Amino acid sequence: MSIVVVGSVAYDTVETAQEKRERQLGGSASYFSIAARGRGPVRCVGVVGEDFRDEDLQLLRSHGADTEGIVRTAGKSFHWAGRYHADMIERDTLATELGVFADFQPEIPAAWRDSEYLFLANIHPSLQLHVLDQMTSPGLVALDTMNLWIETKPDELREVLARVDILLVNDGEARQLTGLRSLARAAAAIAELGPKRVIIKKGEHGAIYFGLDSVLAVPALILDDVVDPTGAGDSFAGGFMGALAESGADRHDGDEVFRQAMLDGTVTASFCPEGFSVEGLIALTDEAYARRLQTLRDMMIP
Amino acid sequence: MSIVVVGSVAYDTVETAQEKRERQLGGSASYFSIAARGRGPVRCVGVVGEDFRDEDLQLLRSHGADTEGIVRTAGKSFHWAGRYHADMIERDTLATELGVFADFQPEIPAAWRDSEYLFLANIHPSLQLHVLDQMTSPGLVALDTMNLWIETKPDELREVLARVDILLVNDGEARQLTGLRSLARAAAAIAELGPKRVIIKKGEHGAIYFGLDSVLAVPALILDDVVDPTGAGDSFAGGFMGALAESGADRHDGDEVFRQAMLDGTVTASFCPEGFSVEGLIALTDEAYARRLQTLRDMMIP
Repeated sequence: MSIVVVGSVAYDTVETAQEKRERQLGGSASYFSIAARGRGPVRCVGVVGEDFRDEDLQLLRSHGADTEGIVRTAGKSFHWAGRYHADMIERDTLATELGVFADFQPEIPAAWRDSEYLFLANIHPSLQLHVLDQMTSPGLVALDTMNLWIETKPDELREVLARVDILLVNDGEARQLTGLRSLARAAAAIAELGPKRVIIKKGEHGAIYFGLDSVLAVPALILDDVVDPTGAGDSFAGGFMGALAESGADRHDGDEVFRQAMLDGTVTASFCPEGFSVEGLIALTDEAYARRLQTLRDMMIP
Repeated sequence: MSIVVVGSVAYDTVETAQEKRERQLGGSASYFSIAARGRGPVRCVGVVGEDFRDEDLQLLRSHGADTEGIVRTAGKSFHWAGRYHADMIERDTLATELGVFADFQPEIPAAWRDSEYLFLANIHPSLQLHVLDQMTSPGLVALDTMNLWIETKPDELREVLARVDILLVNDGEARQLTGLRSLARAAAAIAELGPKRVIIKKGEHGAIYFGLDSVLAVPALILDDVVDPTGAGDSFAGGFMGALAESGADRHDGDEVFRQAMLDGTVTASFCPEGFSVEGLIALTDEAYARRLQTLRDMMIP
């Protein structure tokens, strides 16, 4: 049961109070692919420039991702630079150089179009629509978006949302999209737009799943050290979708399998901020995963 | 098993985008007492001025509080005025008129000094110490404090913390008190100061209990409408301590009973923001409580 992910494959320059790392592997599709941990497997669609290092493609492949859908074109790879505040939550964007990403027209390889799962990472809603149009009949489509598209491309966003099963956004974006303060009301309003399941991501405060007929609030694991929180949301999505692909769930299933997948996303995402770039995810072992899953359950069950 | 609460009994003027209410019953001891729902019972220690309405004392009594410890003196009652932003989280303080509260010297009635439970609401740490000195041997002492005392009275605060079993603070205060970003590390550092159990209150994101050998993260219930969030933290404390008093727990008990009490605090607190002043708490019925407790459990158990 394969997962197609369409998103950015990028280089990030990240500065924290402790350290600065230049042009390290980043991008939503990169985090997602590694976080899925070989389940699916993940078929990765993106674009990189001439500067993109073969070793980074190799790294994705060694973590179970098929990189045949990552096109290399003339120009530079998408580069984001940011500086985190001491709280490791607030951040200032110092540079956004789209490079080859500016002309990204995602083409799904013919052999991938019948994939069962589709994750549309945070890109222009028109591109998300363009991807959906190429897929034959995915059993489950999840979508991430952001305030920029909610503000500037509301019509395109609504058009794509109408064809999506699961929306992943943060609490501010859910409120902005619906104009409703109550997250319960916002989730209900989003269901009217299309996605019958909504996941509200709240960073260190965890995530809430609003399902067909149930709600599950999952706390974030409490970390001793946060090195670089970049990519945690996409890592959550990768763990979540990986768990669904492993179980073979689709949009017709009840909430149960999605509630369990929330735990996978949460545990997986907890490794991401423990290292720069994808280093935290790569350090994830089965044993460490199992320990954190138990810790999470102990934190949740009263 | 009686609970002594020492805190403010006040009048609040609260403004929201929808409405303004002038000089309505407020104060930490008021919210706490009603939220305890007759368990204990609660013995309320505070000071009010000549302007304090008898009907407000009667209201506290009708909800199970003993108001013999509320002294009326010459002057005006403590008055706080604030305006909530549209998000119903941020607020601006428009006025803080201490009135008779400026000279508050809490005296615990002789017959109350052997009470089993003590809740020291957010007042000057020297007054909290003065109260502790009057108690014979409470089986469980919980304390709330704030950034003002952490900044301006660190020595007095540490002196009182050394004699406290449970500290209730928000995440920012826990970090400020310890200088540690990780809440797990902050809770461990606080345990070194005295309180072996720490409750981190996070408002709409819920609360985390750091116990003797376990952690429990409890989400907040998701409300359709927030009318006035003032007093939700003290309502949490009232429900939490009420549950402990009902079960007879003390500092020697393991985490189990405290984990269950977290649910009582959470469910109780969820009623508070649904009305101005204590109106939301007063509207709480056994049936509504039972429904919300079930909703909370369904949100928590994966």
